[in-house]
Amino acid sequence: MSQAKEMNNGLEWTIKMVDGTTQTLVPHEGPVMKAWNCLVGLFSRFVSKIWGFLLKAWNLGVADPRKVIHCLKVGMALSVVSLFYYMRPLYEGVGGNAMWAVMTVVVVFEQTVGATMCKCLNRVCGTFLAGFLGVGVNWVAERSGEKFERLIIGASLFLLASAATFSRFIPTVKARFDYGAMIFILTFSLVSVSGYRVDELLALAHQRISTVIIGTSLCIIVSMLVCPIWAGTELHNLILRNLDKLSCSLEGCVIEYFDGSIEGGKNEPIKNLQGYKCVLTSKATEEIMANFARWEPAHDRFNFLHPWKQYLKVGASIRRCAYCVEALYGCIYSETQAPESIKSHLASTCLRVSSISSNVIKELGKAIKATRKSSAIDFAVGQMDDAVKDLQSCLADLPNLLLPLPSPEVSGTESEKAERSAASLATMPLLDVVPLVTLASLLIEIAGRIKGVVDEVEGLAELAEFKPAVEEKLKHNQPTNGITLQKQNEEGTQKALERV
Amino acid sequence: MSQAKEMNNGLEWTIKMVDGTTQTLVPHEGPVMKAWNCLVGLFSRFVSKIWGFLLKAWNLGVADPRKVIHCLKVGMALSVVSLFYYMRPLYEGVGGNAMWAVMTVVVVFEQTVGATMCKCLNRVCGTFLAGFLGVGVNWVAERSGEKFERLIIGASLFLLASAATFSRFIPTVKARFDYGAMIFILTFSLVSVSGYRVDELLALAHQRISTVIIGTSLCIIVSMLVCPIWAGTELHNLILRNLDKLSCSLEGCVIEYFDGSIEGGKNEPIKNLQGYKCVLTSKATEEIMANFARWEPAHDRFNFLHPWKQYLKVGASIRRCAYCVEALYGCIYSETQAPESIKSHLASTCLRVSSISSNVIKELGKAIKATRKSSAIDFAVGQMDDAVKDLQSCLADLPNLLLPLPSPEVSGTESEKAERSAASLATMPLLDVVPLVTLASLLIEIAGRIKGVVDEVEGLAELAEFKPAVEEKLKHNQPTNGITLQKQNEEGTQKALERV
Repeated sequence: MSQAKEMNNGLEWTIKMVDGTTQTLVPHEGPVMKAWNCLVGLFSRFVSKIWGFLLKAWNLGVADPRKVIHCLKVGMALSVVSLFYYMRPLYEGVGGNAMWAVMTVVVVFEQTVGATMCKCLNRVCGTFLAGFLGVGVNWVAERSGEKFERLIIGASLFLLASAATFSRFIPTVKARFDYGAMIFILTFSLVSVSGYRVDELLALAHQRISTVIIGTSLCIIVSMLVCPIWAGTELHNLILRNLDKLSCSLEGCVIEYFDGSIEGGKNEPIKNLQGYKCVLTSKATEEIMANFARWEPAHDRFNFLHPWKQYLKVGASIRRCAYCVEALYGCIYSETQAPESIKSHLASTCLRVSSISSNVIKELGKAIKATRKSSAIDFAVGQMDDAVKDLQSCLADLPNLLLPLPSPEVSGTESEKAERSAASLATMPLLDVVPLVTLASLLIEIAGRIKGVVDEVEGLAELAEFKPAVEEKLKHNQPTNGITLQKQNEEGTQKALERV
Repeated sequence: MSQAKEMNNGLEWTIKMVDGTTQTLVPHEGPVMKAWNCLVGLFSRFVSKIWGFLLKAWNLGVADPRKVIHCLKVGMALSVVSLFYYMRPLYEGVGGNAMWAVMTVVVVFEQTVGATMCKCLNRVCGTFLAGFLGVGVNWVAERSGEKFERLIIGASLFLLASAATFSRFIPTVKARFDYGAMIFILTFSLVSVSGYRVDELLALAHQRISTVIIGTSLCIIVSMLVCPIWAGTELHNLILRNLDKLSCSLEGCVIEYFDGSIEGGKNEPIKNLQGYKCVLTSKATEEIMANFARWEPAHDRFNFLHPWKQYLKVGASIRRCAYCVEALYGCIYSETQAPESIKSHLASTCLRVSSISSNVIKELGKAIKATRKSSAIDFAVGQMDDAVKDLQSCLADLPNLLLPLPSPEVSGTESEKAERSAASLATMPLLDVVPLVTLASLLIEIAGRIKGVVDEVEGLAELAEFKPAVEEKLKHNQPTNGITLQKQNEEGTQKALERV
């Protein structure tokens, strides 16, 4: 028995066999058809991959339009430098070596002004130094007879290349002159090797240096004039962002804990509280930025010799806080949860400490942002100290809570009461309170580390000569200022408590 | 009155004035003398700086001789490639463009084999792709009339350079093809720009590609054959070192705490215990190494498709432990110290947890080192769980200790006793115990995180197909093995306790 059945997607033939089973008839595919289908599959997968890639790229561009601007800048600089080929007088001036200018632009143009300047100066200095040395070595080699000529050139190439490569391992050189050392090796080998052949050494060196200077100046001009991105400003903003993220994470996680929204063992903190994780891993970026920032001329509110190194110290102290916040997250998402009675005993003080601590961090952020000393910071730190002391005395009161008061309506002899209270204490699981005590203790530790951040920021204020805190207002308004801050804090704690 | 006085260092004239004061006569220095002294001073400072720099470099070389070997390798590769200039047949084969080979060697030669291979492949692919595209664009431009020729070339340069620059921002491209994208831009601009001038486009492209291939193959051969440094092996060793440092820091700091050698508030941990700090900041290095390692062919005990990404996961889990160890250090160097009685109650269990935990870490290190599953790890983790449970029950007993037992010889009514015990509890400062409780709690947290490391290492063992744990021995010896480990742990704890 066979029957034809119209399917939704097309025609399908099934055979009902004598034993009751059915078999579907698959149309016979020739090898050409198979190959075609395979090709179509491959192509559609390829297209969908390309599409995904383009989508990702589009999102990247939308998220940070400065990246798109940088790309257009590179295109512009390249187009300008390639004009050298079309303008005959300029082209003849550099003797057909305009290629070096193009190359310089491609290799040297970086996203931030500092990085571009660093590479440009490295390239120019490396080229100069190696050019002079190369000419000198060739001069000596030419004068020492045909026998020694090759030997001298070969040996000097080997030695200088090895030495320059080694210098790239020395941390101070690596940080500032890594690219310069590479360019030194490159130019020296080109000059000494082609000098042996071409016999136009001085002309070559002159051409190379002038094209490099043309390329580098073009790069510097474009990167500084067209929507410049300053490494210094980037570093400044990175530190501000990190302070902000840390304060949000710190305050948020404590609120969440006392909010009761955390189930024991549930191990997924809310996503927007995880900002501290960025702080944990930002060391490398900070170092790179600080390294480039020192090459930059004065810009925005930053002088040429702005103390960028101090930003690294501030960053490190912020990171020390973040390590503790990480441990704090580990502890609040632990499996045992303290009983509600004990939790509520510590809730208000813990919330106060975290709210005031995160306020201190925010205050520091404001001060750095305005490059102005903060008038409220001393007061805020004082408040933080008070809150920490309160928390400590709450901790000291904890044993009283662990020992429930004998209720008055229960009768019995005094000895019974004493036994009961001792027994209840012994069985009262301190174990349940451990995460809470740890939380409090970590909060105290974090407050201590925040003081470290305050010190580093004060050091920055000294070195960078921050404007004094709004002076006229200071004399009359400091108390008001303080009171405002206190009010804010109280409101913050109040809100948090209401949520609890 | 004047008198001559012979000083130790030379002749000095002093004048005793009429009013009793003395004045020293300074020999009159001419401007030449001054300038000379100034010059000598400058020169000696310069020499001492150079000397310091050389000393630093020497120490660097002594500390890691592989760096010196790398430099010699670079010198060697450069000398070999410069031979192309001296060998006339080869020189003529690449049409005087041997310069590109020299350049390739300088730019592409990196310390690890993986980095060199990555740059080589990127350079070759980038050059090929851009060469083809450049020739194609020029062909189209030539055929579209003189009017459009410049326009087409200029526009394609602008567009492709911008697009390639943008692609360097996409994380996956950045990680693998960053250098290739740069070379693409470089080659494309050179080909399209010089094509317009030189009219020997195909020859130029052919020369450039062949010189690049000569340079890259030389680099790969030298870096793989002469004392190779494999990025994969480096990553492997970095993870091993981090495991080792973490276990030392963990065990050491707990021993130091119960040893009593830490004064409250003394904020300087012993230097060789600070290894965990390297773990905190090794993320960037791990990522770079893992990125290069995947370009490497099979070497040592690692296949071509060794799961290097899993190493990153292992590294991240180790870092999570290190964050907690950092908090632990903060807590053991805090200012309040628990009373000795309480400390000694927890000492043995805390020491046991830390010693067993660090043993688990060491065991993981051994397993990774031998690329062999560990037969003892399950047992060790079980032991760690037991130790954590012991610690938890010790913590549960803590209130009993805080409540001193009423001594039998003291007379008085039962009610007095009860009051006394309640009062002593209230005054017994839980505050002093807080750092100790925090320490214990962090130790428990660390034990939990170590389990995370164990999981990731097991994942690595699966993916990398680690050899099974010495199987024949396993059946008969596992109990023995376990007992050995237990014995070791007990000995460790015993030793630590003796030191305490």
